[in-house]
Amino acid sequence: MVKREMKVTPYDVRGKIDYDRLINEFGLERITDNILKRIEKHAGEMHFMLRRKIFFAGRDLKWVLDEYEKGNKFFLYTGRGPSGPIHLGHLGTWIFAKWLQDKFGAELWFQFTDDEKFLLGKNESMEEVQKWMYENMLDIIALGFDPKKTYFLVDTKHAGMIYPEAIKVAKRITYSMVKSSFGFNESTNIGLIFFTSVQAVPAFLPSVLKKKKIPCLIPHAIDQDTHFRITRDILPKLGYRKPASIQNSFLTPLSGPEGKMSSSKSSGAILTTDSPKEVERKVKKYAFSGGQKTTKDHREKGGNPDVDVAYQWLNYFLEEDDRKLQEIYEKYESGEMLTSELKEILIDKINAFLKEHQKKREKAKKIVDDFIYK
Amino acid sequence: MVKREMKVTPYDVRGKIDYDRLINEFGLERITDNILKRIEKHAGEMHFMLRRKIFFAGRDLKWVLDEYEKGNKFFLYTGRGPSGPIHLGHLGTWIFAKWLQDKFGAELWFQFTDDEKFLLGKNESMEEVQKWMYENMLDIIALGFDPKKTYFLVDTKHAGMIYPEAIKVAKRITYSMVKSSFGFNESTNIGLIFFTSVQAVPAFLPSVLKKKKIPCLIPHAIDQDTHFRITRDILPKLGYRKPASIQNSFLTPLSGPEGKMSSSKSSGAILTTDSPKEVERKVKKYAFSGGQKTTKDHREKGGNPDVDVAYQWLNYFLEEDDRKLQEIYEKYESGEMLTSELKEILIDKINAFLKEHQKKREKAKKIVDDFIYK
Repeated sequence: MVKREMKVTPYDVRGKIDYDRLINEFGLERITDNILKRIEKHAGEMHFMLRRKIFFAGRDLKWVLDEYEKGNKFFLYTGRGPSGPIHLGHLGTWIFAKWLQDKFGAELWFQFTDDEKFLLGKNESMEEVQKWMYENMLDIIALGFDPKKTYFLVDTKHAGMIYPEAIKVAKRITYSMVKSSFGFNESTNIGLIFFTSVQAVPAFLPSVLKKKKIPCLIPHAIDQDTHFRITRDILPKLGYRKPASIQNSFLTPLSGPEGKMSSSKSSGAILTTDSPKEVERKVKKYAFSGGQKTTKDHREKGGNPDVDVAYQWLNYFLEEDDRKLQEIYEKYESGEMLTSELKEILIDKINAFLKEHQKKREKAKKIVDDFIYK
Repeated sequence: MVKREMKVTPYDVRGKIDYDRLINEFGLERITDNILKRIEKHAGEMHFMLRRKIFFAGRDLKWVLDEYEKGNKFFLYTGRGPSGPIHLGHLGTWIFAKWLQDKFGAELWFQFTDDEKFLLGKNESMEEVQKWMYENMLDIIALGFDPKKTYFLVDTKHAGMIYPEAIKVAKRITYSMVKSSFGFNESTNIGLIFFTSVQAVPAFLPSVLKKKKIPCLIPHAIDQDTHFRITRDILPKLGYRKPASIQNSFLTPLSGPEGKMSSSKSSGAILTTDSPKEVERKVKKYAFSGGQKTTKDHREKGGNPDVDVAYQWLNYFLEEDDRKLQEIYEKYESGEMLTSELKEILIDKINAFLKEHQKKREKAKKIVDDFIYK
């Protein structure tokens, strides 16, 4: 297999992801123990995704906690580009955002970048994007966000509110800045060139609407950092504070440790709408294993949980119990647990999660409208 | 004086304008006698700006008249970038558009590109742009457009309607296309890069809103042709017909025959809000003359009305009577009429026009809201 060079931008993620290198290249701050303790103090508990460093880096977390302690509560901002179905890799950011909402009593402004996905898609019509957006909203609502504190912003639907703010951002961004940041070229369409200014808006829109400066914290997957680096450059020039962020690594694709999960590759992703049989089939067929080739070898030499996708997924979000996870690690590493057994654990965990999720997803259909910003 | 090279784009007009060259470079159609006759037949009269070739070129005028004769009426689309006060040079396009509205019973969609002017301005705040937009609306209403058939679109105010359509256009336009067309470079801001897709929207928005394809005719000054060449390229790809256009030359600046009039140069422009004294002062002080240096010389050799700005202005829109205009031409050319006399005629004409205009402008304040699209 050819080793592909790492690339991480909002429009292209490839190669084996070296998160240490990204921290350096993007100029991110690692989440320090001190920050973790302060979060734990206010939340009353430590989220396992913080402890396990799934959320591993951020910007200005100290500032956002300082403000919180002064009584100046932050709002959360995250989003989704609705270009296809939701897979398990999407959920980590939002599960954590939901926890932050609960523990910090924070409003969540959730942006659906239907414009971006329409502008990006080679063949996708706006109708397809709208169809996926509705489906995606169901998944997001199913995660349990508070309808009284959660506002869905749809770029086209709320353009009347977003565009007049976006041009204030756009006026400060040159073509040269987006060209290098996003890898645009002469053939890039002018809608996509403009788009980063639209993604900047929710970071200060609540401050505009409420006529006071409210700190913003953006939980997001690291590939979106490019947008928010630009947002952070521009917002002070418009009289707003830079948004803080807390960033998660990607869930390893089912098929192995390169790139990020994609709904369009069925070998790499499990969708939130997959049936138990489909989950079983995909895990058994595709999940990249850290085990040995024969049972005999495995019993003797043991498996490698650090590259095993089933183990990675349990660690990422499906097994919250550290003790159980540690046990699995040791048993797999020692050879006591076979790959097929580890995969069974994963299949059961996913199916238990999806059974509940799909029920909530069905119920969400009745309350979608409550979430749309009015 | 250094002769400056001609340049005509929406963002830069300079040098002596060679309209024949523009017809070739832009690929415009001259307005044929046959087209003029067809317009005259339907209008019941010939507009002097057509006869005098102030409106001298267009695109697809034959098609728009064919459709009209089949009972498929066109709507008119024109606009204004509200970056400053209205001067006399702005009025020609709109006076003619008003005539078209009256004679052809056409709806007029009038776009105020407040976003563009904000994005272009080096120091202008959005508040300044909004202030000028209101002032400009008064001038436009004062020209007598039918409030029942005229719809003001404000790019920021109507962004909820415009942006979702603009991205459909933007998806088809690459950076390379706008770079060469508008003279953009690496330092151009991404809002301005996107903007031409916003200017394209009114050419098909009525078709979207009414769910049927309505021919569009755009009366506009020739420097806007760049935008509409792109609009015409893209619209068929979205399932709409190319808009037709009818294009006017610029009113010569008071100070002489280079570039186009600008409100920011007080020596070149007379504003619609100027007092009679101010008009007199500007014309006497700045109006570029085709006369001789001394009265004696002038009586002997005569003046040159073809370069005289006072004469040009009478011809452009202030003296509708061909017979009177011809008399002035001959008297000035022969030396019988002095420059000071010709200027007096112009001053009287402007002040008579502005007296009425300023009254109507005052009345317009009460009905601005009737014109805003709802």
